[in-house]
Amino acid sequence: MPPFTKDVVKFGTFVVTSQVFHLTPLSFALVNLKPLLPGHVLVSPRRIVPRFNDLSAAEVQDLFLTVQRVSRTVERVYNASALNIAIQDGVDAGQSVPHVHAHIIPRRKDDLSDAGGTDAIYGMMESEEGDLGRQFADQEKKKQGQSEEAAGDKRGRFPAVDEAGRKPRSEEEMQKEADWLAEEMAKDEKSST
Amino acid sequence: MPPFTKDVVKFGTFVVTSQVFHLTPLSFALVNLKPLLPGHVLVSPRRIVPRFNDLSAAEVQDLFLTVQRVSRTVERVYNASALNIAIQDGVDAGQSVPHVHAHIIPRRKDDLSDAGGTDAIYGMMESEEGDLGRQFADQEKKKQGQSEEAAGDKRGRFPAVDEAGRKPRSEEEMQKEADWLAEEMAKDEKSST
Repeated sequence: MPPFTKDVVKFGTFVVTSQVFHLTPLSFALVNLKPLLPGHVLVSPRRIVPRFNDLSAAEVQDLFLTVQRVSRTVERVYNASALNIAIQDGVDAGQSVPHVHAHIIPRRKDDLSDAGGTDAIYGMMESEEGDLGRQFADQEKKKQGQSEEAAGDKRGRFPAVDEAGRKPRSEEEMQKEADWLAEEMAKDEKSST
Repeated sequence: MPPFTKDVVKFGTFVVTSQVFHLTPLSFALVNLKPLLPGHVLVSPRRIVPRFNDLSAAEVQDLFLTVQRVSRTVERVYNASALNIAIQDGVDAGQSVPHVHAHIIPRRKDDLSDAGGTDAIYGMMESEEGDLGRQFADQEKKKQGQSEEAAGDKRGRFPAVDEAGRKPRSEEEMQKEADWLAEEMAKDEKSST
Protein backbone atom coordinates (compact mmCIF):
# COMPACT_ATOMS: atom_id res chain seq x y z
CA MET A 1 0.00 0.00 0.00
CA PRO A 2 1.25 3.53 -0.67
CA PRO A 3 1.75 5.67 2.43
CA PHE A 4 -1.13 7.78 3.75
CA THR A 5 0.32 10.94 2.23
CA LYS A 6 2.52 11.73 -0.76
CA ASP A 7 3.83 14.90 0.90
CA VAL A 8 7.35 14.36 2.15
CA VAL A 9 7.08 14.80 5.90
CA LYS A 10 10.16 15.38 8.01
CA PHE A 11 10.61 14.84 11.73
CA GLY A 12 13.76 16.79 12.50
CA THR A 13 16.17 15.73 9.76
CA PHE A 14 14.40 12.37 9.24
CA VAL A 15 11.95 11.55 6.46
CA VAL A 16 8.96 9.87 8.14
CA THR A 17 6.37 9.96 5.34
CA SER A 18 5.43 6.27 5.62
CA GLN A 19 4.85 6.61 9.38
CA VAL A 20 2.40 9.53 9.07
CA PHE A 21 -1.31 8.80 9.66
CA HIS A 22 -2.78 12.28 10.04
CA LEU A 23 -1.99 15.63 8.48
CA THR A 24 -3.41 19.09 9.05
CA PRO A 25 -2.22 22.35 7.49
CA LEU A 26 0.14 22.90 10.44
CA SER A 27 0.61 19.53 12.20
CA PHE A 28 1.13 15.82 11.59
CA ALA A 29 0.87 12.59 13.58
CA LEU A 30 3.19 9.61 13.17
CA VAL A 31 3.56 6.08 14.50
CA ASN A 32 6.75 5.09 16.32
CA LEU A 33 9.63 2.87 15.34
CA LYS A 34 9.63 1.41 18.86
CA PRO A 35 6.37 2.26 20.66
CA LEU A 36 6.84 2.16 24.44
CA LEU A 37 3.30 0.78 24.75
CA PRO A 38 0.83 -0.18 21.99
CA GLY A 39 -0.52 2.95 20.32
CA HIS A 40 2.33 5.25 21.41
CA VAL A 41 2.35 7.95 18.72
CA LEU A 42 3.77 11.45 18.24
CA VAL A 43 2.18 14.73 17.10
CA SER A 44 4.41 17.52 15.73
CA PRO A 45 4.10 20.89 14.05
CA ARG A 46 5.02 20.71 10.35
CA ARG A 47 7.50 23.53 10.81
CA ILE A 48 10.74 22.20 12.27
CA VAL A 49 11.51 24.18 15.42
CA PRO A 50 12.98 22.84 18.66
CA ARG A 51 11.07 24.66 21.40
CA PHE A 52 7.39 25.01 22.28
CA ASN A 53 7.79 28.77 22.54
CA ASP A 54 9.04 28.87 18.94
CA LEU A 55 5.50 28.05 17.77
CA SER A 56 3.03 30.69 16.60
CA ALA A 57 -0.41 30.89 18.22
CA ALA A 58 -1.92 29.22 15.14
CA GLU A 59 0.61 26.38 15.39
CA VAL A 60 -0.05 25.85 19.11
CA GLN A 61 -3.79 25.76 18.54
CA ASP A 62 -3.59 23.38 15.59
CA LEU A 63 -1.08 21.13 17.38
CA PHE A 64 -3.26 20.56 20.43
CA LEU A 65 -6.52 20.20 18.52
CA THR A 66 -4.64 17.50 16.61
CA VAL A 67 -3.39 15.97 19.88
CA GLN A 68 -6.99 15.92 21.08
CA ARG A 69 -8.33 14.20 17.97
CA VAL A 70 -5.46 11.71 17.78
CA SER A 71 -5.69 10.88 21.48
CA ARG A 72 -9.40 10.13 21.19
CA THR A 73 -8.78 7.69 18.35
CA VAL A 74 -5.77 5.88 19.84
CA GLU A 75 -7.48 5.53 23.22
CA ARG A 76 -10.46 3.93 21.50
CA VAL A 77 -8.70 1.62 19.08
CA TYR A 78 -6.12 0.42 21.61
CA ASN A 79 -8.84 -0.18 24.24
CA ALA A 80 -7.18 2.17 26.69
CA SER A 81 -8.71 4.03 29.66
CA ALA A 82 -6.26 6.94 29.99
CA LEU A 83 -3.37 8.71 28.25
CA ASN A 84 -0.03 10.25 28.99
CA ILE A 85 0.49 13.41 26.96
CA ALA A 86 4.01 14.79 27.33
CA ILE A 87 6.43 17.21 25.71
CA GLN A 88 10.12 17.14 26.52
CA ASP A 89 10.73 20.78 25.70
CA GLY A 90 14.48 21.13 25.25
CA VAL A 91 17.57 18.94 25.68
CA ASP A 92 17.71 19.36 29.46
CA ALA A 93 14.18 17.96 29.69
CA GLY A 94 15.20 14.83 27.74
CA GLN A 95 14.38 15.93 24.15
CA SER A 96 16.43 13.90 21.64
CA VAL A 97 15.09 15.18 18.28
CA PRO A 98 15.13 19.01 18.06
CA HIS A 99 11.62 19.25 16.61
CA VAL A 100 8.68 19.91 18.97
CA HIS A 101 6.70 16.69 19.53
CA ALA A 102 3.99 15.59 21.92
CA HIS A 103 4.06 11.95 22.97
CA ILE A 104 0.61 10.35 23.24
CA ILE A 105 0.69 7.05 25.12
CA PRO A 106 -2.54 5.07 25.69
CA ARG A 107 -2.72 3.61 29.20
CA ARG A 108 -4.70 0.87 30.92
CA LYS A 109 -5.07 -0.07 34.55
CA ASP A 110 -1.96 -1.87 35.80
CA ASP A 111 -0.42 -1.95 32.31
CA LEU A 112 3.04 -1.42 33.74
CA SER A 113 2.65 -3.23 37.07
CA ASP A 114 5.49 -5.58 36.12
CA ALA A 115 7.72 -2.70 35.03
CA GLY A 116 7.42 -0.71 38.27
CA GLY A 117 3.94 0.86 38.19
CA THR A 118 2.08 3.61 36.33
CA ASP A 119 5.08 5.94 36.46
CA ALA A 120 7.47 3.51 34.74
CA ILE A 121 6.39 4.95 31.37
CA TYR A 122 8.47 8.06 32.00
CA GLY A 123 11.64 6.18 32.79
CA MET A 124 11.05 4.34 29.52
CA MET A 125 10.61 7.63 27.62
CA GLU A 126 13.95 8.78 28.92
CA SER A 127 15.85 5.53 28.45
CA GLU A 128 17.69 4.50 25.31
CA GLU A 129 14.51 2.63 24.46
CA GLY A 130 12.75 5.97 24.16
CA ASP A 131 15.65 7.82 22.52
CA LEU A 132 13.94 8.84 19.29
CA GLY A 133 17.02 10.57 17.96
CA ARG A 134 19.07 7.42 18.14
CA GLN A 135 16.27 5.24 16.77
CA PHE A 136 15.76 7.40 13.71
CA ALA A 137 19.50 7.69 13.13
CA ASP A 138 19.83 3.90 13.33
CA GLN A 139 16.95 3.49 10.89
CA GLU A 140 18.50 5.90 8.38
CA LYS A 141 21.84 4.16 8.55
CA LYS A 142 20.24 0.77 8.12
CA LYS A 143 18.57 2.04 4.97
CA GLN A 144 22.02 2.99 3.78
CA GLY A 145 23.24 -0.54 4.38
CA GLN A 146 25.16 -0.10 7.60
CA SER A 147 24.62 -2.51 10.48
CA GLU A 148 22.68 -1.23 13.47
CA GLU A 149 25.65 -1.91 15.69
CA ALA A 150 27.92 0.23 13.56
CA ALA A 151 25.18 2.85 13.36
CA GLY A 152 24.53 3.18 17.09
CA ASP A 153 26.22 6.16 18.62
CA LYS A 154 26.25 4.50 22.01
CA ARG A 155 25.33 7.67 23.84
CA GLY A 156 23.59 5.71 26.54
CA ARG A 157 22.77 8.64 28.76
CA PHE A 158 20.26 6.46 30.60
CA PRO A 159 20.20 2.77 31.35
CA ALA A 160 18.31 0.79 28.72
CA VAL A 161 14.87 -0.57 29.57
CA ASP A 162 14.58 -4.05 28.11
CA GLU A 163 16.65 -2.80 25.17
CA ALA A 164 17.83 -6.23 24.12
CA GLY A 165 14.32 -7.66 23.99
CA ARG A 166 12.83 -5.33 21.40
CA LYS A 167 13.53 -4.78 17.74
CA PRO A 168 12.66 -1.67 15.76
CA ARG A 169 9.62 -2.33 13.57
CA SER A 170 9.87 -2.67 9.82
CA GLU A 171 8.69 0.10 7.47
CA GLU A 172 5.90 -2.25 6.35
CA GLU A 173 4.68 -2.84 9.88
CA MET A 174 4.66 0.88 10.65
CA GLN A 175 2.90 1.72 7.42
CA LYS A 176 0.24 -0.88 8.14
CA GLU A 177 -0.44 0.69 11.54
CA ALA A 178 -0.40 4.18 9.99
CA ASP A 179 -2.96 3.14 7.33
CA TRP A 180 -5.20 1.59 9.97
CA LEU A 181 -5.01 4.65 12.23
CA ALA A 182 -5.75 6.96 9.29
CA GLU A 183 -8.94 4.97 8.63
CA GLU A 184 -9.92 5.03 12.30
CA MET A 185 -9.28 8.79 12.52
CA ALA A 186 -11.61 9.26 9.56
CA LYS A 187 -14.35 7.26 11.30
CA ASP A 188 -14.11 9.42 14.42
CA GLU A 189 -14.18 12.61 12.38
CA LYS A 190 -17.30 11.42 10.60
CA SER A 191 -19.03 10.51 13.86
CA SER A 192 -18.31 13.90 15.43
CA THR A 193 -19.66 16.03 12.61
CA MET B 1 -1.18 41.09 50.20
CA PRO B 2 -4.54 40.15 48.71
CA PRO B 3 -4.44 37.29 46.21
CA PHE B 4 -3.93 38.01 42.50
CA THR B 5 -7.63 37.54 41.79
CA LYS B 6 -10.83 37.96 43.76
CA ASP B 7 -12.62 35.35 41.65
CA VAL B 8 -12.98 32.13 43.58
CA VAL B 9 -10.98 29.62 41.55
CA LYS B 10 -11.44 25.89 42.08
CA PHE B 11 -9.08 23.08 41.17
CA GLY B 12 -11.30 20.02 41.34
CA THR B 13 -13.16 20.43 44.64
CA PHE B 14 -10.40 22.59 46.16
CA VAL B 15 -10.44 26.39 46.43
CA VAL B 16 -7.03 27.59 45.16
CA THR B 17 -7.65 31.33 44.74
CA SER B 18 -4.53 32.41 46.66
CA GLN B 19 -2.33 30.14 44.52
CA VAL B 20 -3.53 31.56 41.16
CA PHE B 21 -1.11 33.86 39.27
CA HIS B 22 -2.71 34.02 35.83
CA LEU B 23 -6.29 33.99 34.58
CA THR B 24 -7.76 33.99 31.12
CA PRO B 25 -11.45 33.69 30.18
CA LEU B 26 -11.09 29.89 29.98
CA SER B 27 -7.91 28.92 31.85
CA PHE B 28 -5.90 29.60 35.01
CA ALA B 29 -2.38 28.95 36.28
CA LEU B 30 -1.52 28.14 39.89
CA VAL B 31 1.57 27.56 42.01
CA ASN B 32 2.01 24.24 43.80
CA LEU B 33 1.79 23.29 47.45
CA LYS B 34 4.86 21.07 47.01
CA PRO B 35 6.67 21.95 43.77
CA LEU B 36 8.76 19.01 42.55
CA LEU B 37 11.37 21.48 41.31
CA PRO B 38 11.46 25.29 41.69
CA GLY B 39 8.86 26.87 39.40
CA HIS B 40 6.71 23.73 39.02
CA VAL B 41 3.25 25.14 38.25
CA LEU B 42 -0.06 23.88 36.84
CA VAL B 43 -2.35 25.22 34.10
CA SER B 44 -6.02 24.15 34.03
CA PRO B 45 -9.21 24.97 32.19
CA ARG B 46 -11.63 26.94 34.39
CA ARG B 47 -14.37 24.42 33.68
CA ILE B 48 -13.93 21.36 35.90
CA VAL B 49 -13.79 18.29 33.66
CA PRO B 50 -11.58 15.24 34.12
CA ARG B 51 -10.45 14.35 30.60
CA PHE B 52 -8.64 16.24 27.85
CA ASN B 53 -11.28 15.13 25.34
CA ASP B 54 -13.98 16.75 27.50
CA LEU B 55 -12.61 20.18 26.47
CA SER B 56 -14.11 22.26 23.67
CA ALA B 57 -11.87 23.48 20.85
CA ALA B 58 -11.88 26.97 22.40
CA GLU B 59 -10.80 25.53 25.76
CA VAL B 60 -7.98 23.47 24.21
CA GLN B 61 -6.69 26.48 22.32
CA ASP B 62 -6.86 28.81 25.31
CA LEU B 63 -5.29 26.20 27.61
CA PHE B 64 -2.19 25.70 25.47
CA LEU B 65 -1.71 29.35 24.60
CA THR B 66 -1.73 29.83 28.38
CA VAL B 67 0.74 26.95 28.84
CA GLN B 68 2.97 28.62 26.25
CA ARG B 69 2.90 32.03 27.95
CA VAL B 70 3.33 30.59 31.45
CA SER B 71 6.18 28.30 30.36
CA ARG B 72 8.07 31.22 28.83
CA THR B 73 7.86 33.18 32.07
CA VAL B 74 8.73 30.36 34.48
CA GLU B 75 11.67 29.25 32.33
CA ARG B 76 13.01 32.81 32.41
CA VAL B 77 12.47 33.66 36.07
CA TYR B 78 13.71 30.30 37.35
CA ASN B 79 16.81 30.46 35.10
CA ALA B 80 15.90 27.18 33.42
CA SER B 81 16.97 25.87 29.99
CA ALA B 82 14.13 23.43 29.26
CA LEU B 83 10.68 22.35 30.44
CA ASN B 84 8.65 19.25 31.02
CA ILE B 85 5.04 19.76 29.96
CA ALA B 86 2.83 16.81 30.90
CA ILE B 87 -0.80 15.84 31.30
CA GLN B 88 -1.82 12.72 33.16
CA ASP B 89 -5.09 12.25 31.33
CA GLY B 90 -7.16 9.89 33.48
CA VAL B 91 -6.66 7.81 36.61
CA ASP B 92 -4.80 5.01 34.84
CA ALA B 93 -2.22 7.55 33.67
CA GLY B 94 -1.61 8.74 37.24
CA GLN B 95 -4.13 11.62 37.49
CA SER B 96 -5.04 12.28 41.14
CA VAL B 97 -7.34 15.34 40.86
CA PRO B 98 -10.15 14.81 38.30
CA HIS B 99 -9.71 18.22 36.68
CA VAL B 100 -7.57 18.51 33.52
CA HIS B 101 -4.18 20.04 34.38
CA ALA B 102 -0.88 20.47 32.57
CA HIS B 103 2.24 20.29 34.71
CA ILE B 104 4.94 22.78 33.69
CA ILE B 105 8.31 21.99 35.26
CA PRO B 106 11.36 24.18 34.53
CA ARG B 107 14.51 22.10 34.00
CA ARG B 108 18.24 22.74 34.04
CA LYS B 109 21.19 20.61 32.98
CA ASP B 110 21.88 17.88 35.54
CA ASP B 111 19.24 19.26 37.94
CA LEU B 112 18.28 15.76 38.99
CA SER B 113 21.64 14.03 38.65
CA ASP B 114 21.56 13.12 42.36
CA ALA B 115 17.98 11.82 42.09
CA GLY B 116 18.62 9.43 39.19
CA GLY B 117 18.91 11.64 36.08
CA THR B 118 16.69 13.77 33.86
CA ASP B 119 13.87 11.21 33.95
CA ALA B 120 13.57 11.16 37.73
CA ILE B 121 11.04 14.00 37.50
CA TYR B 122 8.39 11.59 36.27
CA GLY B 123 8.84 9.15 39.12
CA MET B 124 8.46 12.16 41.40
CA MET B 125 5.25 13.23 39.64
CA GLU B 126 3.80 9.80 40.26
CA SER B 127 5.00 9.36 43.83
CA GLU B 128 3.11 10.43 46.94
CA GLU B 129 5.23 13.57 46.75
CA GLY B 130 3.48 14.43 43.50
CA ASP B 131 0.02 13.24 44.57
CA LEU B 132 -1.86 16.51 44.20
CA GLY B 133 -5.13 14.99 45.34
CA ARG B 134 -3.66 13.97 48.65
CA GLN B 135 -1.78 17.25 49.10
CA PHE B 136 -4.87 19.35 48.57
CA ALA B 137 -6.95 17.11 50.80
CA ASP B 138 -4.32 17.38 53.55
CA GLN B 139 -4.25 21.16 53.18
CA GLU B 140 -8.06 21.42 53.45
CA LYS B 141 -8.12 19.26 56.54
CA LYS B 142 -5.33 21.25 58.15
CA LYS B 143 -7.37 24.40 57.60
CA GLN B 144 -10.15 22.65 59.47
CA GLY B 145 -7.83 21.97 62.41
CA GLN B 146 -7.02 18.31 61.85
CA SER B 147 -3.42 17.13 62.00
CA GLU B 148 -1.75 16.18 58.73
CA GLU B 149 -1.19 12.70 60.02
CA ALA B 150 -4.86 12.20 60.77
CA ALA B 151 -5.74 13.79 57.42
CA GLY B 152 -3.49 11.59 55.26
CA ASP B 153 -5.37 8.81 53.56
CA LYS B 154 -2.22 6.71 53.32
CA ARG B 155 -3.02 5.50 49.85
CA GLY B 156 0.64 5.17 49.05
CA ARG B 157 0.19 3.78 45.57
CA PHE B 158 3.82 4.62 44.84
CA PRO B 159 6.85 4.79 47.05
CA ALA B 160 7.46 8.26 48.43
CA VAL B 161 10.33 10.30 47.02
CA ASP B 162 12.01 12.12 49.88
CA GLU B 163 8.57 12.51 51.47
CA ALA B 164 9.88 12.98 54.98
CA GLY B 165 12.25 15.78 53.98
CA ARG B 166 9.73 18.22 52.54
CA LYS B 167 6.91 20.20 54.09
CA PRO B 168 3.95 21.67 52.21
CA ARG B 169 4.37 25.41 51.80
CA SER B 170 2.32 27.93 53.75
CA GLU B 171 -0.50 29.91 52.10
CA GLU B 172 1.64 33.03 52.56
CA GLU B 173 4.61 31.51 50.80
CA MET B 174 2.49 30.34 47.87
CA GLN B 175 0.74 33.68 47.59
CA LYS B 176 4.07 35.48 47.55
CA GLU B 177 5.26 33.33 44.65
CA ALA B 178 1.91 33.79 42.88
CA ASP B 179 2.14 37.59 43.21
CA TRP B 180 5.69 37.57 41.88
CA LEU B 181 4.81 35.34 38.92
CA ALA B 182 1.79 37.51 38.10
CA GLU B 183 4.12 40.53 37.88
CA GLU B 184 6.63 38.66 35.76
CA MET B 185 3.87 37.40 33.43
CA ALA B 186 2.78 41.01 32.96
CA LYS B 187 6.34 42.04 32.03
CA ASP B 188 6.55 39.32 29.37
CA GLU B 189 3.17 40.26 27.95
CA LYS B 190 4.25 43.87 27.67
CA SER B 191 7.53 42.97 25.95
CA SER B 192 5.79 40.77 23.37
CA THR B 193 3.23 43.33 22.21
